Formats: sequence, structure tokens, C-alpha cells
Amino acid sequence: MKLHGYYRSSASWRVRIALNLKELPAEHVAHHLRKGEQRDPTYLALNPQGLVPTLSLDDGTSVTQSLAIIEWLDETHTRPPLLPGDPLNRARIRSFAQVIACDTHPVQNLKVLARLRQLGLADEAVTAWAAWAINEGLGACETLIARETGPFCFGNAPTLADICLVPQLFNARRFGVDLSAYPRLLQAETATQAVKAFQDAAPERQHDAE
Amino acid sequence: MKLHGYYRSSASWRVRIALNLKELPAEHVAHHLRKGEQRDPTYLALNPQGLVPTLSLDDGTSVTQSLAIIEWLDETHTRPPLLPGDPLNRARIRSFAQVIACDTHPVQNLKVLARLRQLGLADEAVTAWAAWAINEGLGACETLIARETGPFCFGNAPTLADICLVPQLFNARRFGVDLSAYPRLLQAETATQAVKAFQDAAPERQHDAE
Repeated sequence: MKLHGYYRSSASWRVRIALNLKELPAEHVAHHLRKGEQRDPTYLALNPQGLVPTLSLDDGTSVTQSLAIIEWLDETHTRPPLLPGDPLNRARIRSFAQVIACDTHPVQNLKVLARLRQLGLADEAVTAWAAWAINEGLGACETLIARETGPFCFGNAPTLADICLVPQLFNARRFGVDLSAYPRLLQAETATQAVKAFQDAAPERQHDAE
Repeated sequence: MKLHGYYRSSASWRVRIALNLKELPAEHVAHHLRKGEQRDPTYLALNPQGLVPTLSLDDGTSVTQSLAIIEWLDETHTRPPLLPGDPLNRARIRSFAQVIACDTHPVQNLKVLARLRQLGLADEAVTAWAAWAINEGLGACETLIARETGPFCFGNAPTLADICLVPQLFNARRFGVDLSAYPRLLQAETATQAVKAFQDAAPERQHDAE
């Protein structure tokens, strides 16, 4: 397998964590987003959105969209599970993951922020936009797991929820978001920091890190 | 079950289609988004994002996020399936759905467009923003299913992909997007128009339609 990604892309990072948790080897192919390498025609043939990540399988098939890739990994390599067996618990974890992957990260990603700059917004206003989107998402996430015992988002092992949370908290700090209102999310992040699969997936450990 | 929604919300519409395909009855509770009813504290206790939809189950549990709700419905009421059995085919359909539900709709929803207006963007620029986000998404979707035989997005029965596509095409027309570049998507939409579950889920057929 090849994972097409970028060291600082949240969505690529999610898939790196999932691959590491499943102990699956993959060649990491870097596409430098700020240089526009994801718009190269060869890459667009794999991923028509021109976004990362893409997982290319050995039979030539490609899967795009981080959550679809992770669910595919979880269905084809079942240990350790990234979603539990009970449908309602699966739904609650997917819901948490989608607050981040649908309503938070896409509203503050590189592409949207670049568009805001093109429309004439000053850097300060662009940063405030990102912080707004992130606070909206993290606020909901904090409430969704407030009554979960932890230490991870849902129970005593990492799930799809933690996989989405960790890169989003990294983004939050980049945009100066005050995280003190999110103690339960920070507790989950701390739990992930002791897990090698999470450690090895961090941006600064990738071969394309700058 | 109760579905908390709004007649014109794309995400609520997706869940209505899924409920109808599964022939599951649900009480439809309307929350008028433009009047801010989704920010009512009673509703926020069900959905901390203050977004629609939310599916409230008879045991008092609630599930938020349209894709999480639909996957829960599909896992607990398996006929007709909204995702096929083969993991790779599931992944391809989820990927298509997420292009819309993660990268397209959240970038052009009511909340984001209202924020753009607050930042001083004129109506014309706001409409252009929505059209840009929609064209980016639909362009990728058209490519993802270009080689699928149809008539639906993936094969001869509706799936999660068609459920996400139909409301997104409605939004595209609202924002004046020229759909002639997307013949395969329009073919899939035409196929859905013959299906009663899709007909009955349309915004103009809902009791809160204006």
C-alpha cells in the first residue's frame, strides 16, 4: 500500500495513526500542499479532488477521503478495532469524528483559508475565522464525551474519535485557540500521547517534515 | 423515533431519504434554522452543535451527524442496504458521500455563509463562494462515478451516495451552478426521481415547508 499525504495535513495524519494502530506497513508518498503538488495531473488521476490523503492499494485501486479509508482499514484488518461492535456506540463515535471531519476541519483547512485571503481578508481575520470554526467544533466534542469515563474519548482504548481529535487539537494550537475550556478533550489527547502508534504518526516525525 | 430537522437542510433531507428507503416511521420535529430555533437550550441538550438533524430514539438516546445516523440505520435495519457488502465498494461509496458531506456542504451551509456576510462580503461574493465550493465537490463526484454503469451513482439501486447527491444538487441550483458539466450526476438524480422514498423526502413535501 501507498499512502499519499502531507506531513501536516490533518486528514493524512488520521490515516497514519490508523495504519500504525493496525501495524500495517505503507509507503508514504509526500505531496507538498503549499507548493500545489496535489494538483499534478498524475495525482489527480488517483484523487479527483486534488486533496490528500489517498490510499493506493497493491491492485491499483485507490481510496480517497480519510474516514472512508479508515473504515475500510477497520473492516479489512479488524484488530485492534477502531469502532466497537454495538451499533449505537459506533454511531456515537462516528458522530464525534464527523463533528471534526465534516463540520470543523473542512471549514478551516488550507484551501478555505487561501480562498478567504483571495477575497481580501487580512491575516488576522483569517486566523479568527479558523479559531471560530475550531471552537465551534471542539465545544460540541467536549460536550459529546463529557460523561464518558475515558481516559480516551470513548473508554480505555483509542477509537476513530481519538484519531480525529489529535490533529484537530494541533490545528487549534496553530491558530492560538485557548484549549482550557476542553479538559475532557485534553485528557483524551494525553492518553494518546503514551501510544506509540500516535507518537509515530506526528507531523514532525514524517520524512517530508520541514 | 423522532427526527429533528428542517425542511431545507441538506443533512436532514439525507436522513429523511434513508428513513423512507428503510420504511421506518419517525415523527418529524421542525427547527426553523433561519429563526435560530436550533440554538434553543432544550435542543442543544440533544445536539450540542446546535445543528440539524438529530435522531432521538425511544429509549431517550440521541444520535447526531447525518452520516452517523444513516450508518446506524443501515446497521440496525439492514433491508434495503444503503452500502454493499464488499469493503472496497463500501469505501468507494463512503468516499463519494464524504466529498459532499465533509468537503462541500459544510463549506457552503447557512452558518458559514452567514459568517461571510458578517465579515462584510456582499451577497454576490457569498453566492460565488457557495458556487465555488459546490463546483469543487461536484467535479470530483462526477469523476468518481464516471465509469460506473448506473443509473444510480453506484449500480442499479440507491445507496448512501445518491442520498448525499440529491440535496447537494438542489443547493447547486439555488446558487445558480451550471450543472451541464455533470451528466453522470444528473443521470443518477433522474433515477432517484422515480423512487417514492426520494419523492417523499423532498423539502416541498415537508410540513414545515414555506
